[in-house]
Amino acid sequence: MALTRKAAWKMFGCTVQQFTHASSATGTQMRFTITLPPQAADGPVPALYYLSGLTCTDDNVTQKGFAQHAAAKYGVAVVAPDTSPDHAEGGGLGLAGEGESYDFGSGAGFYLDATVAPWAGPYAMESYVSAELPALVEEEFRGRVRPGVRGITGHSMGGHGALTLALRHPEVFHSVSAFAPICAPSACPWGQKALDGYLGSADKGAWAEHDACELLRSRGALPHGRALLVDQGGADSFLGEDAEGAAPGSGAVNQLLPEHLRAACAEVGQPLELRLQAGYDHSYFFIASFMEDHVRHHAEALHKL
Amino acid sequence: MALTRKAAWKMFGCTVQQFTHASSATGTQMRFTITLPPQAADGPVPALYYLSGLTCTDDNVTQKGFAQHAAAKYGVAVVAPDTSPDHAEGGGLGLAGEGESYDFGSGAGFYLDATVAPWAGPYAMESYVSAELPALVEEEFRGRVRPGVRGITGHSMGGHGALTLALRHPEVFHSVSAFAPICAPSACPWGQKALDGYLGSADKGAWAEHDACELLRSRGALPHGRALLVDQGGADSFLGEDAEGAAPGSGAVNQLLPEHLRAACAEVGQPLELRLQAGYDHSYFFIASFMEDHVRHHAEALHKL
Repeated sequence: MALTRKAAWKMFGCTVQQFTHASSATGTQMRFTITLPPQAADGPVPALYYLSGLTCTDDNVTQKGFAQHAAAKYGVAVVAPDTSPDHAEGGGLGLAGEGESYDFGSGAGFYLDATVAPWAGPYAMESYVSAELPALVEEEFRGRVRPGVRGITGHSMGGHGALTLALRHPEVFHSVSAFAPICAPSACPWGQKALDGYLGSADKGAWAEHDACELLRSRGALPHGRALLVDQGGADSFLGEDAEGAAPGSGAVNQLLPEHLRAACAEVGQPLELRLQAGYDHSYFFIASFMEDHVRHHAEALHKL
Repeated sequence: MALTRKAAWKMFGCTVQQFTHASSATGTQMRFTITLPPQAADGPVPALYYLSGLTCTDDNVTQKGFAQHAAAKYGVAVVAPDTSPDHAEGGGLGLAGEGESYDFGSGAGFYLDATVAPWAGPYAMESYVSAELPALVEEEFRGRVRPGVRGITGHSMGGHGALTLALRHPEVFHSVSAFAPICAPSACPWGQKALDGYLGSADKGAWAEHDACELLRSRGALPHGRALLVDQGGADSFLGEDAEGAAPGSGAVNQLLPEHLRAACAEVGQPLELRLQAGYDHSYFFIASFMEDHVRHHAEALHKL
């Protein structure tokens, strides 16, 4: 087996396992956690890939997301990768600037393949998540995970990852949803810093290839015709001045811009279920509260394939 | 208000709030977290007190216990106190020996009133949990929490607390359950260390007053006639040599002794639903998996009162 098992336990009838492995996409060690529902003992089940947000590892959703409860209810495997190369186990690669800020470098790979030194090469999270990891999972868990039947979701930076990877690789991911995603990275500080750092400032065309709103405009609606499900907490402080209870005129920045996504979907006819959840923040308490709805959204699509 | 609010958020439709307050029982600052389900907006709901295990604070169950999901489903408030005086916020009282071991002193109050110096006085977790805290909650959340209608549950050391406090105060707590409780503290190292340290070694009669099995024998079955619900993971390493997969002859100690509880209940006719859950460990992954069953057990009893 190409995988080293770090931990395993039972939860809600599921078998949860955490592995490390040598990644060809990043050239580093990578870690992920996979939840196999009890149904996988009777035959292969679809897999939902969950992409985490800034600073997180696979542990956050595993410990606080309660996806295992819904995985068992709907017969779906859940695969949660790390957020940057060799992050959770190795602490990063020691690149200059890698550990200086929470929103760039270590824990902040933004699910793209960097083209600028020193990130180009190891910071290849798009290749890892959209190609290497599904192939690895479907090989290593043959008979338990269905090959080629996959959904993708994520939170915040991971919501950006889910939307952009689903739009860029509709042949790989067949259903998509997101929790409080960074909807328009070209238009917010988190995204601008990442796109500038990983792709350079010269080529705004390259930025557009990793911005969900720009991808919708350039590529049109998803070919499979299924809706995007997006939940956004109304009291999420990363909505800046647009958050419930925010002080008007404070200048607090909206990093998430869900209305940009709504406009882009409307322009190209992409079905979107964008739900503003009053009173909810940006935390895993919010994610856990709506996880079952997301797993059901994916299960309903994937079990038909 | 006698409470200082440290945090508040929304989860599964519930309002979750963490408070500190000056405790008369312990003479220190104490912290607890209360989950109010949406039903509390329409009138008072019963409260379930959740007692945590060694080293824990109210944060563990709040973040990993999944109780909010069941609280909203069954219309029950959940109150989670800390595990020793001034532990989570203050780090303890600075008593000699308080922070030296994980299983005694700070984070290990064992839900009794100590009688031995220097613990006698502040280490009064029984008075705090069975008298001061319910009165405080029912006063501060008047109209949302029903006075005098209470269940109690807990994990490991907190399971010991739930069983002993329910047996010692059946007029205070009207339903009881436990996750992997320390069933017979007089007969296991964790319990012997705590009972010796807090109550002294001279008076074994005092020990029996804080041992669920001994209390059943001395006081008989619970007067309200309702069953104890106890879940125990089969792969729980604290079952020692009795755990699934344990090496025979290793000498690993059973700290939990669920069969002692089964025997004591049988002797006195106390109804017991003791469920051995194959493959589950001692962690919050285990607790979360069966939390809904426990909240339902309490809700079914308490909503009838």
